[in-house]
Amino acid sequence: MSAQTGLPTSTLQATLLRSRSLVEPALRKAVSELHPAPGRIASHAFGWCDEDGTPTAAANDAGGKGIRQALAVLGAQAVGAAAETAVSAAVAIELVHTFSLMHDDIMDGDERRRHRPSAWKAFGTGQAVLAGDALFALAVRVLAETPGEGGAAALRQLTVTLGELVHGQADDLLFETRPWTGPGAVDIAEYQAMAERKTGSLLASALGLGAALAGAPPEPVAALSWAGRQWGIAFQGIDDLLGIWGDPRATGKPAHSDLRRRKKTLPVLAAMSLDPAAGPVLAGLLGTRGPVEEADVRRAAQVIEDAGGRDFALREARRLLDAARERMYAAPLAPAAVDELVALSESLLRYAS
Amino acid sequence: MSAQTGLPTSTLQATLLRSRSLVEPALRKAVSELHPAPGRIASHAFGWCDEDGTPTAAANDAGGKGIRQALAVLGAQAVGAAAETAVSAAVAIELVHTFSLMHDDIMDGDERRRHRPSAWKAFGTGQAVLAGDALFALAVRVLAETPGEGGAAALRQLTVTLGELVHGQADDLLFETRPWTGPGAVDIAEYQAMAERKTGSLLASALGLGAALAGAPPEPVAALSWAGRQWGIAFQGIDDLLGIWGDPRATGKPAHSDLRRRKKTLPVLAAMSLDPAAGPVLAGLLGTRGPVEEADVRRAAQVIEDAGGRDFALREARRLLDAARERMYAAPLAPAAVDELVALSESLLRYAS
Repeated sequence: MSAQTGLPTSTLQATLLRSRSLVEPALRKAVSELHPAPGRIASHAFGWCDEDGTPTAAANDAGGKGIRQALAVLGAQAVGAAAETAVSAAVAIELVHTFSLMHDDIMDGDERRRHRPSAWKAFGTGQAVLAGDALFALAVRVLAETPGEGGAAALRQLTVTLGELVHGQADDLLFETRPWTGPGAVDIAEYQAMAERKTGSLLASALGLGAALAGAPPEPVAALSWAGRQWGIAFQGIDDLLGIWGDPRATGKPAHSDLRRRKKTLPVLAAMSLDPAAGPVLAGLLGTRGPVEEADVRRAAQVIEDAGGRDFALREARRLLDAARERMYAAPLAPAAVDELVALSESLLRYAS
Repeated sequence: MSAQTGLPTSTLQATLLRSRSLVEPALRKAVSELHPAPGRIASHAFGWCDEDGTPTAAANDAGGKGIRQALAVLGAQAVGAAAETAVSAAVAIELVHTFSLMHDDIMDGDERRRHRPSAWKAFGTGQAVLAGDALFALAVRVLAETPGEGGAAALRQLTVTLGELVHGQADDLLFETRPWTGPGAVDIAEYQAMAERKTGSLLASALGLGAALAGAPPEPVAALSWAGRQWGIAFQGIDDLLGIWGDPRATGKPAHSDLRRRKKTLPVLAAMSLDPAAGPVLAGLLGTRGPVEEADVRRAAQVIEDAGGRDFALREARRLLDAARERMYAAPLAPAAVDELVALSESLLRYAS
């Protein structure tokens, strides 16, 4: 059972499965129109085939849980439209999400994605750049070909989101070069503004585009988009928790991976803000060049936890999910769809990454 | 004087300067809205600043000649519209062109672009991936925000072009892995189909988008777009000639650079098609692994020339430019604008790359 909505966990699985059954055929059709080379890399990223092109088993999570496509579908249903209305929005959002992971993995040097080699690691950097471009172009095209005024409005919204995604990623990369303490250090507000752009804008689009395509009025669309932004910030914070304390078997990444990479994530920034003594200690443990010692990584995780960084990130996520829930229930939205959205947002705690 | 139109060369310069004066303020304004990190990389690519952000002298060609923006402006004028109508199309096209060069340079490992370090060389691969994404997103946004039905039509056209660009680049990369001779070898028709996608589609969009934004009927828009496609194929062939026989001082690349990189460009494919004996010889000289010997490169250039590969590429360019010219003069287009377009297309022989 989900504590917040009373919907059983199996309902969440049913929600995700229902959206996937609706969206995946259109997504596969769109991807099948790509050039075979970027098309294969895209199919690998969606979990449909192995590196050599061999199709994978029908049901697997190698392409992610499909949360964003479910948000698009539920967004349409929340404004009283048929689930089918959201299909092209859901396809566009999944394409943009996958493009963005593919290029971010290049920038961040991430070699693994969902327990498999990332695209650049499996196919080479140049091919991964091109495959990302192909997905980006396809996303825009899918919406541009959606007929009606709703399609044009959705496309305008998506172009704003694309700019925000890039802006958020640029900030994230810059943060790594900024000092740990003193003037120029990253603060929590800046970090959350980055997370809102990098993660929140796409979730906001996922929720809002389905509703926009259905021709919904501004008020419910704004409530859905606002909720998506809060989720994005919460989602990033939970991802940050998993990047330090997540189980490697679940995350597919080594324990403490974000600390090993010296990432100034939310728990780290919160620890330094809550305990002025923590900053210099963490800077001493992680802020040097060369490989980070295993003992220093473990010590840093403990310092962050002792200073309250872990609790802060969890509390923030709870606060943001609560605010999003309240706003949605207060808006003129279909309660059954909002129930499912709330249950999905609660599942972020488990599905994060 | 241009042999084809009787317009003096200084008129060409005036055409380019006039378009640039009209378009560059809008282009700079759009780029100024980017995050400062990708914004600086974009400004460097447009020739507005050095690697460290220092503004460059007002008039220079470090950002290219601006042919595509001129095509957009002349395309609008050719259908009787004011030059100003084309500004957002011209901005979008210049943004897409620069995005595509930035990402292609990563894929091709090209370290130089217009006599300066390419973006990935100057700023790192990750930053160049992100800056390219930023330009791509901005291009789509600029058109999405252009009001009116013309804007929506132009955006739909641009999304098709973006897909073609990626498809053409994917083919170009694949060609490098295919055999020199025998089954699976690249033929001239395939090569020209690649060039039409990789180079022609954007020139077609440049010419057609300005006219589409002006609300022109299908016939003149189709004539302009068709001409742009022929130019693209011709342009690629001329670029290929320069890649083998171009003056390093003009191209900014070492002599025979395409042969050193074993690229199967049009003159090479034509030589092998015209003289069956040339294929095995060229495969022997260039088709091996490891660095290519300087003497082998010079010998290969001579074999290609002797087999008629150079003449073929030149004749093809001439044929394509002639066909484009005839189609434009036969269409309901303003003759003065077509005169300028023809003069510009002739200048490709000098401005290629």
